[in-house]
Amino acid sequence: MQNENPDTSLDNNKDGGYGEVPIQRYKDNAFTSSTDFVATEVPVAMVFNGISHAVMLATPLNLTDFAIGFSFSEGIISHRSEVYEIEEIAHPDLGLEIHLTIANACFMRLKERRRSLVGRTGCGICGLESLSAFEAGNLAVGSAVPRLPENNFIITQQALFSAFNSLKQSQAINLITGSMHAAAWVNAQGEVMMVREDLGRHNALDKLIGAIISQPESRQQGCVLMTSRASYELVQKAARAGMPLLAAISAPTSLAINLAQQSGMTLIGFVRNEGLVAYAHPERIRLT
Amino acid sequence: MQNENPDTSLDNNKDGGYGEVPIQRYKDNAFTSSTDFVATEVPVAMVFNGISHAVMLATPLNLTDFAIGFSFSEGIISHRSEVYEIEEIAHPDLGLEIHLTIANACFMRLKERRRSLVGRTGCGICGLESLSAFEAGNLAVGSAVPRLPENNFIITQQALFSAFNSLKQSQAINLITGSMHAAAWVNAQGEVMMVREDLGRHNALDKLIGAIISQPESRQQGCVLMTSRASYELVQKAARAGMPLLAAISAPTSLAINLAQQSGMTLIGFVRNEGLVAYAHPERIRLT
Repeated sequence: MQNENPDTSLDNNKDGGYGEVPIQRYKDNAFTSSTDFVATEVPVAMVFNGISHAVMLATPLNLTDFAIGFSFSEGIISHRSEVYEIEEIAHPDLGLEIHLTIANACFMRLKERRRSLVGRTGCGICGLESLSAFEAGNLAVGSAVPRLPENNFIITQQALFSAFNSLKQSQAINLITGSMHAAAWVNAQGEVMMVREDLGRHNALDKLIGAIISQPESRQQGCVLMTSRASYELVQKAARAGMPLLAAISAPTSLAINLAQQSGMTLIGFVRNEGLVAYAHPERIRLT
Repeated sequence: MQNENPDTSLDNNKDGGYGEVPIQRYKDNAFTSSTDFVATEVPVAMVFNGISHAVMLATPLNLTDFAIGFSFSEGIISHRSEVYEIEEIAHPDLGLEIHLTIANACFMRLKERRRSLVGRTGCGICGLESLSAFEAGNLAVGSAVPRLPENNFIITQQALFSAFNSLKQSQAINLITGSMHAAAWVNAQGEVMMVREDLGRHNALDKLIGAIISQPESRQQGCVLMTSRASYELVQKAARAGMPLLAAISAPTSLAINLAQQSGMTLIGFVRNEGLVAYAHPERIRLT
């Protein structure tokens, strides 16, 4: 995989992912009128073969990656090639539609799943059934979380620290607004190969997954570094994408740890200041 | 409102909201086996009059407040008195059910809303309709965001700083795990009257709303301080609860600012280090 120029993301960006707003800033015992750069979020409707599936709040950057990654994380597609066409339609003051044309088999499966969910809802699925469906990952991704395929990915602690140290400069929009999350794809040498930003950490990871899904070899020979806590959903998405290691700069949750242990994924937290904590499968970290 | 002893939250807590897990900590060029306290999240199924409505990931603290606040934020109830009974049922390894018995009129409305959503979904609601429904707040809260009722709440910048400075010590579980969000209710004098914690910032606010919903006068004579960014959903929940001011220690999003401006709510960001930024309706801040 070629190292992406971080500026590439900006070139793809129609509205910059941020806007300037008037503010009153309090400092030194006075308010001053000024302006501030604020990260943009818009409602994005994901529409599959003409049927609206979900409305997500997202930062309008790298929306093609977002649409593909979301489709994959939700279990709607299994391969990049199952998306034939992607079109964005902007509705001023309302948000964006992303129209995806997907393979007929995927669309049939999606309709079947929606029908079964709707049916169970209508018939009054009980709380215990809901919990069981959640446990199986059915509600979230259409199938149980897969165990990671065997792979020999190894990274040193120094490579992770090096990725952590260089990530900040690659977060183009965060440098301006100070409020964006990033998902970075890091190779075994600790180089940051790709960065995707969004106000939502789950969206940022979906964008990253969408960007590298067409490179199955790459995604088993690198790892994800998140500028957030490590939640259950992040581990779930990364596991589904076959990524062997997820590192976060903050804490994981209890469910995230359980899921990482079960799926065979290495889960690292608190990557910062030349320290880290391994919560699951530490064997992929090699000390130098 | 009486100032709550922060320890009260812990007394209500069956499992402490956190657990101890084995970890490998890297420091000074070596891994050491140790343990760490990790915040707990569990799937919580919200069941209304026997029908499961949603499964949320939440920290199992103050679940009664959570159930009431969630019901209110979702537009399922309008008053605390519409919830007759709340029962928790634990399913080891699966999660928790919260069974709410609600007034029949609320339950009928909920069923009607679900039927109409399901119907539109089944008939293939188009992306534009989805966006319009989002715009109207229909999908999220059952009705458009109300304008705040007239109220004369005023707070000084010093009172906000004082609340910010004392909040950390009131975040009982965060002090142990370092990964919890908090929603604090702050009175005009800057006293932290109540704190609710959760791994999710939206859950934390729902818990706070659930705790004070039965005191309509109180909730117009105080404000919310969040240990997170100020997202659209947080402003939406607070506005629906009639809260006149939301302050966050980090940045707001563009949609959050728009919504605060429209609903008449004061929106403050970056409350920290004796500074703050006003993004909407700064007139409720009085300089001392």
